[in-house]
Amino acid sequence: MSFNTRTHTCGELKLSNANEVVTLNGWVAKKRDLGGLLFIDLRDRYGITQIKIAPEQKDIYEVASKVGNEFVISVGGVVIERESKNKNIPTGEIEIDVQKFQILNEASVTPFVIEDEVKASEDLRLQYRYLDLRRHSLQRNLMIRSDVYRIVRNFYADRNFVEVETPILMKSTPEGARDYLVPSRVHKGKFYALPQSPQTYKQILMVSGLDRYIQICKCFRDEDLRADRQPEFTQIDLEMSFVHQQDVFNMTEPMFKEIWKEILGIELQTPFPQMSYDFVLENYGSDKPDLRIFGLSKIVNISEIVKDLEFVVFKNALAEKNGIVGGVKFSFAENNIDVTRKIIDGLTDFVKKLGFGGLGYIKYNSDGSVQSPLQKFLNEEVQAKIKNVFEAKDGEIIFILSGAKKKVLTSLGTIRNKIAADYKLIDKSRYEFLWVTDFPLFHYDEESGEIAAEHHMFTSPKAEEMYKFDEAKNLSGKERGELLQSIKADCYDLVLNGNEIASGSIRIHRQDIQKKVFDVVGLTEQEQQEKFGFLLNAFQYGAPPHGGVAFGFDRIVAILCGLDAIRDVIAFPKTVSAASLMDESPSNVAQQQLDDLGIAITIQTKNSD
Amino acid sequence: MSFNTRTHTCGELKLSNANEVVTLNGWVAKKRDLGGLLFIDLRDRYGITQIKIAPEQKDIYEVASKVGNEFVISVGGVVIERESKNKNIPTGEIEIDVQKFQILNEASVTPFVIEDEVKASEDLRLQYRYLDLRRHSLQRNLMIRSDVYRIVRNFYADRNFVEVETPILMKSTPEGARDYLVPSRVHKGKFYALPQSPQTYKQILMVSGLDRYIQICKCFRDEDLRADRQPEFTQIDLEMSFVHQQDVFNMTEPMFKEIWKEILGIELQTPFPQMSYDFVLENYGSDKPDLRIFGLSKIVNISEIVKDLEFVVFKNALAEKNGIVGGVKFSFAENNIDVTRKIIDGLTDFVKKLGFGGLGYIKYNSDGSVQSPLQKFLNEEVQAKIKNVFEAKDGEIIFILSGAKKKVLTSLGTIRNKIAADYKLIDKSRYEFLWVTDFPLFHYDEESGEIAAEHHMFTSPKAEEMYKFDEAKNLSGKERGELLQSIKADCYDLVLNGNEIASGSIRIHRQDIQKKVFDVVGLTEQEQQEKFGFLLNAFQYGAPPHGGVAFGFDRIVAILCGLDAIRDVIAFPKTVSAASLMDESPSNVAQQQLDDLGIAITIQTKNSD
Repeated sequence: MSFNTRTHTCGELKLSNANEVVTLNGWVAKKRDLGGLLFIDLRDRYGITQIKIAPEQKDIYEVASKVGNEFVISVGGVVIERESKNKNIPTGEIEIDVQKFQILNEASVTPFVIEDEVKASEDLRLQYRYLDLRRHSLQRNLMIRSDVYRIVRNFYADRNFVEVETPILMKSTPEGARDYLVPSRVHKGKFYALPQSPQTYKQILMVSGLDRYIQICKCFRDEDLRADRQPEFTQIDLEMSFVHQQDVFNMTEPMFKEIWKEILGIELQTPFPQMSYDFVLENYGSDKPDLRIFGLSKIVNISEIVKDLEFVVFKNALAEKNGIVGGVKFSFAENNIDVTRKIIDGLTDFVKKLGFGGLGYIKYNSDGSVQSPLQKFLNEEVQAKIKNVFEAKDGEIIFILSGAKKKVLTSLGTIRNKIAADYKLIDKSRYEFLWVTDFPLFHYDEESGEIAAEHHMFTSPKAEEMYKFDEAKNLSGKERGELLQSIKADCYDLVLNGNEIASGSIRIHRQDIQKKVFDVVGLTEQEQQEKFGFLLNAFQYGAPPHGGVAFGFDRIVAILCGLDAIRDVIAFPKTVSAASLMDESPSNVAQQQLDDLGIAITIQTKNSD
Repeated sequence: MSFNTRTHTCGELKLSNANEVVTLNGWVAKKRDLGGLLFIDLRDRYGITQIKIAPEQKDIYEVASKVGNEFVISVGGVVIERESKNKNIPTGEIEIDVQKFQILNEASVTPFVIEDEVKASEDLRLQYRYLDLRRHSLQRNLMIRSDVYRIVRNFYADRNFVEVETPILMKSTPEGARDYLVPSRVHKGKFYALPQSPQTYKQILMVSGLDRYIQICKCFRDEDLRADRQPEFTQIDLEMSFVHQQDVFNMTEPMFKEIWKEILGIELQTPFPQMSYDFVLENYGSDKPDLRIFGLSKIVNISEIVKDLEFVVFKNALAEKNGIVGGVKFSFAENNIDVTRKIIDGLTDFVKKLGFGGLGYIKYNSDGSVQSPLQKFLNEEVQAKIKNVFEAKDGEIIFILSGAKKKVLTSLGTIRNKIAADYKLIDKSRYEFLWVTDFPLFHYDEESGEIAAEHHMFTSPKAEEMYKFDEAKNLSGKERGELLQSIKADCYDLVLNGNEIASGSIRIHRQDIQKKVFDVVGLTEQEQQEKFGFLLNAFQYGAPPHGGVAFGFDRIVAILCGLDAIRDVIAFPKTVSAASLMDESPSNVAQQQLDDLGIAITIQTKNSD
C-alpha cells in the first residue's frame, strides 16, 4: 500500500528536533480528547510520541476522531515543544503538530488491554500471543535474548570457535528422555529423531579436527512437561579438543562476565568457585545449591558426636551402613521470624512425607531457654558439642534428621530450600555461580539393580578410577553396583542461583573405554553397533582428547530478565501439554499425508483440543 | 587422560619463537625417515609444524617410530630454525626439537588418505564424514560459513534487528512442498510439522510490533531431492515493518557488501541492478538470468519483422494468441568456437526435446558467406532487418524459435545457458547480483485450470492491480485465469550468478485482502480458518504494513567458497535419498516408541538401506 515511511521511530525525537518535519508510523496506544484538542500516544517498539490534532484541521480531525486503540497510522507533521512536559519518557518534551494523517490498518477491540500489568489469563495471552508480545515487558525480554545471542557468538568467534550447524533430522538413540520422531517418506518404516542434544555430532566434529565448536541450537525432549519445561529449548553448545576441565571453565567464565556486564552492568567475579559433588551434597544437601541463601547454616554431620548415645533412633540409623545423623541451623530471630509450634509441625509433616519418622530440633529461644524433644536423649556433653559445632546462639534452631546418608543430606537440603523460599531468605540482588565437579559416572539403582549413566554415556571416567572397571568384573549385585557408582567422572555442572544452567564433561575419546561404559550400562554389542557404531568407528581413526559443555540458554536469559519462567523469554512457547494455543498445533493432518509416509494412527487422544 | 596441553597451535610458530619451549598437540599428517632422523608433520586445524626426532633420543625415537598417519600425539620441545626451509607454509622456517612425546590416541589405517585432492567416492566420504572433514578444503568451507553467520548477524544487530527463534515444532499447513511431520505423544493422532519457512511466525512478530526481525534458521522440505537439494537447509530470514520494497533492498545490499569484502576482499557495487520479471523473461528467457554470460546476445523478439512473411512455421506461430518469433545470437568466432553441423544438429535435438519442430538459424560465416535453412523463406529486406536488429556480423549465428511466447522465451533462455555452459562463456571472476521484481501474484495452469500462488499466499498484490480481483469475479475459465495471472505482486528475488539466492515480498497486512487471495487459490472458508485462522485473526488487531526476504544461506556460502554443491558447505549433509550415510539415519525404532505415539507402520520400503 502507499504510505509515507517514517523518518524517525516513536522513541527518538527530542527538543533538538524542534521544527523538523517528520513522519512517524505506529500504533495508537491511547487517544485523549482535551477540550477539543485530540492527543494520540503513538507507540512502536522504540517508544511513545505524542501527536496533537487541533479541531481546526478539519479533515485530519475527522479521520483521527475515528481511530481506536491499536489502529496503525502514519502521521506527518512538525516537531514542537510541549507545554506540559512528561519527564518519564525520552520524547516527553516534544509533540507532533500533525499535517498528514493516514490510517494504515484498523483494529478491533483487543481481548485484553496491551499494558505491562496485564490482567488476562495466561491461556488467553498465549492464544493471542501477537498481542501479548506487544507489551513492553515481553519485547524487552526478547531484545535481551537477542543481545545475549550476539554477545555469546561474538565471544566465541573471537576465540577461534567455529560455528557449525548439526542436523535436526538425526538418528534416534533413545536414552534419557524420549525422542521426537519424524517418519521418513523415502525410507518408509524408518524414522529420524529430533536431537535431544547434538552430543554425538559435536564429538564427531572434534574427531574431524575442527578443534573448537560452538552452536546455539534447538534441542527437543518429548517429556511429560513439568511447569517450566518446553518440548523445544535452546542451548549454547560447545566442544573443544586437547583440553582438560579447567580449560573449559576458563573458556566459559569470561563469557558470563561479558554478558552480565553488558546486559546488567554488573562485574562478575571470576574464577567461579568450584566444589565437588560430594562436598555440595554433604554441605548443602543438593548438587545445585543456591549460595544466595542466608540465615541457614550448611549441613553439619553430627554422627561422631552422637554415636555413643543410647537414643534408639540415632542408634538404629548409625547401625546401618552409610547411616548418619545431621542437621541444619536456622537463624530465625535475626531474620525477624517467629518459629512457632505450628511451623515446626508443618516441617515435621513435610519430612514425614519424605519418609522420616519425625524431625528432631533444638531451639535456642531468645530468652535463653532451650526447647527440644531430643533433650532427654542427649547428655549435657553432647548438647554442648552440638551447640558448639553449629556455633548456635539464642534465636536459632537446629533441625536434625537421621537415616541413610544421601537421604538425610538431600532432605536437609530440601528443608534449607523450603525455609529459604518460605521466609524469603534469598538475596535476590546476588548472582551466585558455582562449578560442581567430580560427579559420579554411574547411577546405581539399588531396587532395580540397574546401572545408568549419571550424566551421559560419553562422559570420561577419571583416569585414576579406571581400575574399578576391572575390579567390578569380579563382583556382582549390590557390591558391584556400589563400586561402579563410586567411579568419579570428569564431569561438571555450572550452577547459578540454585539452577543448573550448564552441564559438561571431558569425553571419552578411546574406543576401548567407550565400550567399557556401554557394557556397564547394559548395551549389547549389537545395540552398541546399531546406535553408536559410527562414533565407535570414529574413535578408531585418531580421536583427540576433548571436552565441552552445554548451557541452558532459555534459563540464563530468564535469570537475566529477573524471571522465574522460561516461557516468558520464548517468543512462541508451548503449554505444559506441548500445545501451541495460538496456531493450535499439534493438529490433524490429511489422510494423504499419512499414506505418503506409510503410517497409520492407532490411538487417538480424546478431547485433546 | 593426563597429557600436556598445547602452548601453541600447529599453525603459529615462527622464527621469532626460536628457542622457546613449546607443547603441540595434533595429528600425524606424515612421517619421514631421513637417514635415521625422524620427521613428523604434525597437523591441526591451524596448520602443520615439523617435528624432528633424532635416533640419540632413544626412548622417544622408539615410541615415535611406531606412530602411523592420523595418530594423535602431544609433543614438547624447543623451537629451532630449520636447515631446509619450506616457503609454502607459515611455519616453514622452524621445526621442533622434541623432548617429550606422548601418543594420545592411535589410529587405524584410514579408508582413504586425508588430502585435498581426495580420490575416494562421495559415498565413502559421506560414510566417514569425520575423516573427510579433516581435509583442509572442507574445514575452510565450514570456517567461511562460520564467518558469514557472524557478519550477517552483526550487520543486523547493528541495525536494530531483533533475533528471534521461531518454533521448529509448528503447525502443518502443507502447500508448496511436503511437510515433515512429527507425531504428538500427548495429543495422539495429531501432528506437528517442521517449518518449510517461519513465514507466518515472522509476520506474527510484525503484528506484535517487533519491527525488525532476523533469524538464521533451519527449514525443512520433504521433497524428492534433486542433485543439490537437502531436506534441511538454512536461510537468513528477515522481516521489517512499515517498509516498501526499496527499504528491504537497502537493508540487504550493504550486508552483501560486507560479506564480499570480508570473505573475498571484493568491493561489490551497489545498488544492485533491478529488472522486472517481464523484462528478464523477454531478454534472458529466465527469471534468474546469469549476467556473467558473454558471447551471447539478449533475446530479440523479431515477430514484427517476420509477421508478413508467408513462411508457414512463423505464420502459424504468430496466428496464435501470444505467439512470437524470437532469437538469440551467439558470437562464436571471437570466442574461438567452431559451430559445426554436428553442434547445430545437437542443438536441434535439444529444442525438439523441448517440444519444438526444429531450430532455425542464420549463420554468418567468417568468410562472409551466410548459411541458413530459413534463407529461402526470408526475403532480402527481412534478412537485412534481422541482421540489423541483432547487430550481427561475420562469425556469429542467430538461433530462432517460434511458438507460444513464454515457451519460446524460456527455451531461448535455456539455449543461452546451455551454450554458455558447454563453451565456458561465463566469466567466473565476476559476481553478478540482480533484483528481479514485479513477479506475477498467481500462476494459472491452463491445463488443470488451477490457480496457485506464484511465490506464496502472503505476498501483497500491487495496490494498483487490486481492481482485477473484482473484475475476475465476472469471468470464468481461461479468461479469469489469465486476468488473475496478470496481477503483479510486490514480490522480488535476488539473483546471483544465475542462482536465485533470495526471495521476498511486501506482505498482505489486511484481513480482507488476505481472504481474497485465499479465495482465489481455492481455500474454503473452513480451510482458511483451520490453517491460517490465527494469522487472519492477528490481522484484525492492527497489523502494520510489512515485508521481508529470505536468503538461501547454503547457496550463498557455496558461491563464496567457489563451489557448485551446497553439500560441501554443510557439515553433515544427507544424500539424495535424504539419508545420512555416517549414522545411518533414518533408522528403525522400537515398537514401544511407536506404541507411545499411537502410530503404526503400514508400508515398509524394501531394501532401503
